[in-house]
Amino acid sequence: MKKKGVAILGLGVVGKGVYDIFAKNHDYFMKTQKLDITVESILDNNTERLKSFGIDASLIARNIEEVVSNPSVDVVVECIGGVEPSKSFIIKALKSGKTVVTSNKELFAKCWCELEEVAKANYVGLFFEATCVGGVPIIRALTESMQGNQIQEIKGIINGTTNFILSKMSDDGAPFAEVLAEAQRLGYAERNPEADVEGFDSTYKLSILSSLAFNTKVNYQKIYREGITKIDVEDIKCGKEMGYTIKLLGIGKNTPKGLEVRVHPTFIKNDNPLASVKDSFNAVTIVGDAVGDIMLYGRGAGSLPTGSAMVSDVIFSLKHPDFVYANFDNTINGKNETKYVLDFTSKYYLRLVVADCAGVLSKISGAFAKEGISLKEVKQISASEDKSQIIVVTHDCKESAVNKTIAKLKELNVCYDIKGCIRIEE
Amino acid sequence: MKKKGVAILGLGVVGKGVYDIFAKNHDYFMKTQKLDITVESILDNNTERLKSFGIDASLIARNIEEVVSNPSVDVVVECIGGVEPSKSFIIKALKSGKTVVTSNKELFAKCWCELEEVAKANYVGLFFEATCVGGVPIIRALTESMQGNQIQEIKGIINGTTNFILSKMSDDGAPFAEVLAEAQRLGYAERNPEADVEGFDSTYKLSILSSLAFNTKVNYQKIYREGITKIDVEDIKCGKEMGYTIKLLGIGKNTPKGLEVRVHPTFIKNDNPLASVKDSFNAVTIVGDAVGDIMLYGRGAGSLPTGSAMVSDVIFSLKHPDFVYANFDNTINGKNETKYVLDFTSKYYLRLVVADCAGVLSKISGAFAKEGISLKEVKQISASEDKSQIIVVTHDCKESAVNKTIAKLKELNVCYDIKGCIRIEE
Repeated sequence: MKKKGVAILGLGVVGKGVYDIFAKNHDYFMKTQKLDITVESILDNNTERLKSFGIDASLIARNIEEVVSNPSVDVVVECIGGVEPSKSFIIKALKSGKTVVTSNKELFAKCWCELEEVAKANYVGLFFEATCVGGVPIIRALTESMQGNQIQEIKGIINGTTNFILSKMSDDGAPFAEVLAEAQRLGYAERNPEADVEGFDSTYKLSILSSLAFNTKVNYQKIYREGITKIDVEDIKCGKEMGYTIKLLGIGKNTPKGLEVRVHPTFIKNDNPLASVKDSFNAVTIVGDAVGDIMLYGRGAGSLPTGSAMVSDVIFSLKHPDFVYANFDNTINGKNETKYVLDFTSKYYLRLVVADCAGVLSKISGAFAKEGISLKEVKQISASEDKSQIIVVTHDCKESAVNKTIAKLKELNVCYDIKGCIRIEE
Repeated sequence: MKKKGVAILGLGVVGKGVYDIFAKNHDYFMKTQKLDITVESILDNNTERLKSFGIDASLIARNIEEVVSNPSVDVVVECIGGVEPSKSFIIKALKSGKTVVTSNKELFAKCWCELEEVAKANYVGLFFEATCVGGVPIIRALTESMQGNQIQEIKGIINGTTNFILSKMSDDGAPFAEVLAEAQRLGYAERNPEADVEGFDSTYKLSILSSLAFNTKVNYQKIYREGITKIDVEDIKCGKEMGYTIKLLGIGKNTPKGLEVRVHPTFIKNDNPLASVKDSFNAVTIVGDAVGDIMLYGRGAGSLPTGSAMVSDVIFSLKHPDFVYANFDNTINGKNETKYVLDFTSKYYLRLVVADCAGVLSKISGAFAKEGISLKEVKQISASEDKSQIIVVTHDCKESAVNKTIAKLKELNVCYDIKGCIRIEE
């Protein structure tokens, strides 16, 4: 029986999940994996927290040097989050010959290649299943199960907080601010919710997932990003009536002209499998040239689900000591730089407040036609004395053409306001 | 760049898929996997087929000996199906030091341990992702991504043919025989459909999946099996009205008393994610003690989806030469034998034809009560001059108690017939 030691950096929500799984399933791993894995070292500057968990004093390290110089530690599990001190700690661990397992999406999105260089130079493993979609085995699926495919598309609900908020807004018809406050009360949203509701968290994850899917490093700053703070319940209601569900999607598409990568609120058809993914659940669909459509679904966050991904990485690293790196050389398409399509193509839903008089529809549709946008549906949804609201659904068109049309519409004296503009994926 | 050679045994639907993927994605694998993988040998006694595919004569082996003695062959991909000659061929390949990748669920269900012994003795790998649920990475998810969990339950639609038939019966209200004929015409069902419609194929897959999930060898012959040939559209219709969808499920549960393993038509609630899995798609939900609920969804069969799983196994085996075996010692629970719960617990839906007179309901419900079965719902759905039909839905109860009740009901002079008996999973 091989005896292996783990160190945990940061005993917060995720770190405690890792700790608890190793404690609960220690004997199970002895039987099923023939591995005797124990937590040998814990680093956390919150001594009160360590005390309240009843952590044995002999396990508590005073600093990172004590962790990485501990010969009983084979794998360092980083659950601190954020760029620093996580980055320095991980580099120290790798340089000390320890395999590193991390759930740090922000760090990985920002410094992946740099960390991989250090891991390679020191012949150790660097695992990051927990950076994306919690317990759902999406990283391993891309790298070890779908590697026989050229991936054409990856699309998913990769942030639980925003999915909880949009599900609630949709079910209850409540406005964003109200539902956000409830999500904060329930612990589904942080006190400072910006990283989730503005889509930053999703761009970190999408950059990691699309890099693996398309075998080329995708810079998270190149991802088009739009959060959910401006979503009006009125648009959710109108979409519902037209058979659409609203989701904050991360979308990556490999097109002949380059990669399309974007995070934004999206209307999807109610019969799309992603439409039924509710509350804080996550799901990702992947399209490969051989396998066709795959969907993976599960809990995208939380102590034990994220802990499950990290423990699975620890065991994988101990069973397969031959580490496989991403090795992005960005030459998959014979180019040295990843190419992005910034002016992407989509279908659009728009809600306009217009004058209620003859000839309006003709002027509105003329503005779209001038930019070469053909319309799939135009319908009036309400009318008062002098105003009416119409919904316009376009066929596929360029983002730039829609923006130009919106600018033109604003100049028309019959168009008072553009209330909603939501992309549609079918 | 490592040069690696593959042999394909059997160039039928799946074998041709493997061949096509390696042909199409050869350069892609050079770039992304740093592997130069070529098909070096093909064994198939259908020479017409080989000719029609334009296979180069130099690749065609005359017998298995030519394949396994070929030093350019590193991995043998078995796509013949059935027990023999596949078994002998695989054993010869393993003994010649070749890694084997197979999609042969019947052989694996029947001879897994024996094949694994040969692989171990020869220090070579034996991979079988393609035996279950086609391109869906379920085997790797269980062994490499959820191995940190004690799995409590695995439940899924693991046969595409029956899912196609049940979806059609449900959507069109057409009877089994008619839909089967259509499925055969469309190529979704074999000319001899028994393996699919009687549930044998599902028991092979469930035995493999539940063995891995519960870390103990599950004998496919111990799996309770009931096919879909006797499903009456009337019951599908009644179920629909009560909020249920019918699916042929493979179910594995790890209970304190032992394993429950069964394949049978099942009513599931419409909001269960499995309910929306239509046509020939497959999906499996897994519940782990840490990760909670996971669902994997995709194409369960077909040339390229199954080929995708086999190619992924080939690449995995070349990247991770340290093979991991199942190593069932059946001592996970401290016992030498896998323990099965044969008298399992479930909820039941029954449709009875009864006399339409006073006191009938009391006699019927009395029969259930006598066996300790409490009822959740009883409703009359039709009545003619002297007969009426009632539907009974039970709370959780033992299979044996239901069988005893059915026997008792048949003796009652007010109960003319028991038309439908379908288990419910919620």
